[in-house]
Amino acid sequence: MQRGLPRAEYEGRLARAQAMMAQAGLDALLLTTEPDIRYFTGFLTRFWESPSRPWFLVVPTQGLPVAVIPSIGAALMAQTWIEDIRTWRAPDLQDDGVSLLIDTLGAAGARIGTPMGYESHLRMPLGDWARVQAGLRAPVVGDAGIVGRLRALKSDAEIAKIARACKIAGRAFARVPEIAAVGVPLSQVFREFQRLCLGEGADWVPYLAGGAAQGGYGDVISPADDAALVEGDVLMLDTGLVWDGYFCDFDRNYSLGPPDPTTTAAHARLIDAVDAAVEIARPGATAAHLFEAMDAIVTGGVGGSDAGRLGHGVGMQLTEGLSLTPHDNTVLEAGMVLTLEPGIEVGPGKIMVHEEDIVITESAPRFLSPRAPREMVQL
Amino acid sequence: MQRGLPRAEYEGRLARAQAMMAQAGLDALLLTTEPDIRYFTGFLTRFWESPSRPWFLVVPTQGLPVAVIPSIGAALMAQTWIEDIRTWRAPDLQDDGVSLLIDTLGAAGARIGTPMGYESHLRMPLGDWARVQAGLRAPVVGDAGIVGRLRALKSDAEIAKIARACKIAGRAFARVPEIAAVGVPLSQVFREFQRLCLGEGADWVPYLAGGAAQGGYGDVISPADDAALVEGDVLMLDTGLVWDGYFCDFDRNYSLGPPDPTTTAAHARLIDAVDAAVEIARPGATAAHLFEAMDAIVTGGVGGSDAGRLGHGVGMQLTEGLSLTPHDNTVLEAGMVLTLEPGIEVGPGKIMVHEEDIVITESAPRFLSPRAPREMVQL
Repeated sequence: MQRGLPRAEYEGRLARAQAMMAQAGLDALLLTTEPDIRYFTGFLTRFWESPSRPWFLVVPTQGLPVAVIPSIGAALMAQTWIEDIRTWRAPDLQDDGVSLLIDTLGAAGARIGTPMGYESHLRMPLGDWARVQAGLRAPVVGDAGIVGRLRALKSDAEIAKIARACKIAGRAFARVPEIAAVGVPLSQVFREFQRLCLGEGADWVPYLAGGAAQGGYGDVISPADDAALVEGDVLMLDTGLVWDGYFCDFDRNYSLGPPDPTTTAAHARLIDAVDAAVEIARPGATAAHLFEAMDAIVTGGVGGSDAGRLGHGVGMQLTEGLSLTPHDNTVLEAGMVLTLEPGIEVGPGKIMVHEEDIVITESAPRFLSPRAPREMVQL
Repeated sequence: MQRGLPRAEYEGRLARAQAMMAQAGLDALLLTTEPDIRYFTGFLTRFWESPSRPWFLVVPTQGLPVAVIPSIGAALMAQTWIEDIRTWRAPDLQDDGVSLLIDTLGAAGARIGTPMGYESHLRMPLGDWARVQAGLRAPVVGDAGIVGRLRALKSDAEIAKIARACKIAGRAFARVPEIAAVGVPLSQVFREFQRLCLGEGADWVPYLAGGAAQGGYGDVISPADDAALVEGDVLMLDTGLVWDGYFCDFDRNYSLGPPDPTTTAAHARLIDAVDAAVEIARPGATAAHLFEAMDAIVTGGVGGSDAGRLGHGVGMQLTEGLSLTPHDNTVLEAGMVLTLEPGIEVGPGKIMVHEEDIVITESAPRFLSPRAPREMVQL
């Protein structure tokens, strides 16, 4: 599979954005985060791990986006389809791109939009943001949800990359019996699982969480401790690995020795919940519909749990876009990729969570993760 | 080595912050980013990879910090020393922690500070930020640099964690001859190097960049492509791996076959530049002094390059705090950990960069990374 995306893909994204900007009355979009900038440019680097430098992309209503970036990134940005690359030597404590950005935005027009809604943030210092706004003709407004709506619908090429990430993780999960057994510290399982992911073809492994405890675990976001696995533990590993900038996000549960009946039944219900959501996951259904279908099975329909949601969009980020909650009425469309992530309480302070990745199509959804069987794998 | 930090360490951080807040006339600090919240709580999770939920910590002038967080994180936060944990079921599209945060901040006082300066950002949607500010008695102000100044000085326990991360990376770098050779694709080298880092004990590998090209490389932030290494290439790998939440950040250069005289000389000059900085890296010297010492050697003193700086602080983040630039007059103090990262132009559009990690002490700095020899390792 080819890395990168054809130029036509970026042209399409830009054309759709510009049409939506015209409708929303925006003269330009200002983007500051890794996925938003990559979406319009293809600029792919792990350098965002460093918080020290801000990066800006200005999407005008006509013509190509303009990159306003630290000079350290100029060579890499020049390999993308972006032609107008304006740089400064960051970090500059006096003027860290502020005046360059003001000039670029000012030339683009008076009405600038930037993502301000759910899940967004502005990746630059608030102090500099005040200076930028003071230098513009009018206050910056929201982006009318444009970037989020565009990113929610994946192209075939994007889906293929997510599918590849899912396949890599699936092969790694299938090899967990090689690395996890009674007596092995959880921290070692985490390290070895990441090695399996890389060995199976992941570019990198941005996310791994999980837990191991008797009959269920306390939460799904903890890092590993050095405690050894013991008989009767349920081991859960949840990974978001990346291939060419696209994530998978799903988990698997394993039983150390034969699972007890409660665990067995809980796992089967999690699978049932996924099946119930898949049954109705068609264009026209909403995120809330999928939530209700799963919640009916895992809680009897009480309306949710402390997890806050039972799945979410996935793509250029580990989680993005819609949330499977009672109140998210986003209508599903073909090309949306999402996780189904039901959780169930198996005892006081103990849960089990199962997760799969699917893509919405015109008919039945397609599993991107290799579907887990009803019966847990025993280690 | 123990994971985590003793409670006394958090008590000390809080006491110092509260003293500085009193001096700055602040009633509370509002923190929203992973390292800032972890600094005062010990809350360690890779779940921050998901952008979907905001997390808040309120540090009052008296008493313990208050966590205002999504309910999915309550169990993990309850394992820290934080007692007052207020949760909501995020994501909530109607009120994603906004009213809970307003209540908490309002009770803390009128004068709220949050990091607004260099390298900071506010990790929540701008739309919700406007709602929070509208609910407070007075506009939120900057944090008077308090968090950055506190984080810049590392305790012995923190330095030990960074040193351990450096040792792990050092062992992985020493094993690069096992994985890199003429004919191996760079993407495979990247994957295998991350596997080495994990195998040597890294919890995870948040950062890896590098390059490989004849006699030097085009930049230092690119991901790997699938091109095979060839004789005469200089291979550079730059990693930021983590042990128990603390980073190392340094690189190594390798020659595929015997290096040509230009490459050999360039590498030796990079080592000389590090030596020159180490020579003067004492309490009382400034970041700018270290820059000048290295710049004199790598450019003849022209005042910098497109990299923007020749080193930086490191700790809970890959890069943090001071920058070795002509204009950063931060005074070095014992307990600061920084990288020395001179770069040199070896041809048109071609550079070489070398990096080591040191800690400032009362006398000569101590190398945390296992110092590289003047002669490049041949593969």
